[in-house]
Amino acid sequence: MGARRYAVIGLGAVGGLYGARLQHAGHEVHFVVRRDAEQVRAHGIDLHSVYGDVRLPEVSVFDDVHEVPEVDAVIVATKTTANDALARLLPPLVRDDSLVLVLQNGLGVEADAHQAAGGRGTVVGGMAFVCSNRLGPGRIHHLDYGTVTLAEYRPDGKPAGVTPAVETLAADLEGAGVEVRPHPDLGRARWRKLVWNIPYNGLSVVLDAGTDELMSDPDTRALVEALMREVVAGSAAAGSPVDDAFVATMLEDTDEMTPYRTSMKLDYDERRPLELDAIYRRPLEAARAGGVDLPRIDTLHRQLRYLDTANRAEDGLRPTLA
Amino acid sequence: MGARRYAVIGLGAVGGLYGARLQHAGHEVHFVVRRDAEQVRAHGIDLHSVYGDVRLPEVSVFDDVHEVPEVDAVIVATKTTANDALARLLPPLVRDDSLVLVLQNGLGVEADAHQAAGGRGTVVGGMAFVCSNRLGPGRIHHLDYGTVTLAEYRPDGKPAGVTPAVETLAADLEGAGVEVRPHPDLGRARWRKLVWNIPYNGLSVVLDAGTDELMSDPDTRALVEALMREVVAGSAAAGSPVDDAFVATMLEDTDEMTPYRTSMKLDYDERRPLELDAIYRRPLEAARAGGVDLPRIDTLHRQLRYLDTANRAEDGLRPTLA
Repeated sequence: MGARRYAVIGLGAVGGLYGARLQHAGHEVHFVVRRDAEQVRAHGIDLHSVYGDVRLPEVSVFDDVHEVPEVDAVIVATKTTANDALARLLPPLVRDDSLVLVLQNGLGVEADAHQAAGGRGTVVGGMAFVCSNRLGPGRIHHLDYGTVTLAEYRPDGKPAGVTPAVETLAADLEGAGVEVRPHPDLGRARWRKLVWNIPYNGLSVVLDAGTDELMSDPDTRALVEALMREVVAGSAAAGSPVDDAFVATMLEDTDEMTPYRTSMKLDYDERRPLELDAIYRRPLEAARAGGVDLPRIDTLHRQLRYLDTANRAEDGLRPTLA
Repeated sequence: MGARRYAVIGLGAVGGLYGARLQHAGHEVHFVVRRDAEQVRAHGIDLHSVYGDVRLPEVSVFDDVHEVPEVDAVIVATKTTANDALARLLPPLVRDDSLVLVLQNGLGVEADAHQAAGGRGTVVGGMAFVCSNRLGPGRIHHLDYGTVTLAEYRPDGKPAGVTPAVETLAADLEGAGVEVRPHPDLGRARWRKLVWNIPYNGLSVVLDAGTDELMSDPDTRALVEALMREVVAGSAAAGSPVDDAFVATMLEDTDEMTPYRTSMKLDYDERRPLELDAIYRRPLEAARAGGVDLPRIDTLHRQLRYLDTANRAEDGLRPTLA
């Protein structure tokens, strides 16, 4: 494994963790940030992590993407709610032989990156199973987990198998101390992640509840399971069938999980926009295009859209019509 | 119309309003209350009402149902969450020729009263469309509406037609200035009321929203309509089909309504138990018995059960398992 040149877009909980690990492992890493570039440049990155703490006093940070030196690989680690910006951010960074790793939640995010990059580069989807928080500019707290599932994107939506691009990125991440699971079928991997994200992210916001509370109450536990079964039905309708037995696995895994706030609950509490399009709207549309309605997920999605609007209205008040 | 002797169980927003109107119109009315009997006896009833204010300095109030004099008719005007108490409260009051008017929300409440009364008396269901609040012991504020739909209960669940019992109660209420709509089919009348109650009561609690907010947001408006259509589907499965066109009527009526807190939101904000069995569980079970699942309503019901438990846990904290 040789050293590679990376651009990491977004220095949040995910970009900060994996970017810092890659730099710590000897790769050349350039961070692209929307704000706080000067502060990070002055103070570096402090990663407090279950993988071991990493202190990087010297960090290459840019708020202007055109100033970033040539790189081999780009990691997209912003929230999906900012994906409109990719059309501006990716073209200066991506060449035909570039790797583009999309470390985001939800469905269709690789297509976003592929389109934003004008079809150049090889796009790989990355599903991080991680508990990590951004505490401030360049300050990341990685509390638990960290495994990244990698699967290559194909514009025709077909499974790509485990490709050289996946193997390259897997080797770099593993070399940086990150557990990686290569996956031959991006669609299926994305839908598997949704089996967890759709119930827990949404219900944690609507009910102001932790995963432990959702699991210990018999009604919400049954609701979580019913939502998971709708995700499984949606995956089949969308042509990326997840095994029904995976529901039981996810329930058991969550039972054993230390209770955290979900990323969506964290966004909600911080009054940031929720990743509803990627995690709810697109899966609902993909299922509907396959002829299947998912009424419980649709109910949750509409509730979340209402709460998201109310949450971000000025002074916490909803805009009125009159 | 002659004067009749009434016992009114519950001196809340509903029992206080209609009981005071009946006494004001010349009927003999005895109130059965769980608490505050002495205070009401000392200070009487003050009804501030769009029908005109009523001040009743002398009120017959009992906290022991066995002290109530013989009556011709009993009005059940407690919350359905207290229906277990009917087996204690109704037998001393109900004879074979008694009328029992059940002024409660939800499904199956007439069967509750019928069973509690040991099958004696003629049970009539009353659906009040009213905005009324209890401000304190004997102090009622009736803000808007007030129409009562009346339909007789038959143990076999069949439509009873407009019966003498309905006509008698209708005449008394109309004589007391209350608008009444006799209905030949209790099941259908109950399901019609659910078309409104199921979406607005539940969503107002889960989303902390008024009816006006639910109607002006496109997502919650669509969700309200989808929930209403599930109620219509449930009514057909339960053998009491509500016309699909009724959904549009309810949406239009609510658009024109002055925004209030729903009764369930009021209960939630006051940390009282929510009427989930009558308004959600029983309709869901009736539909399921007819072979129809109502996934959106089930989702809402489970969310509400979770919130109801959390809301009433000591110190506002949920009980923990550990």
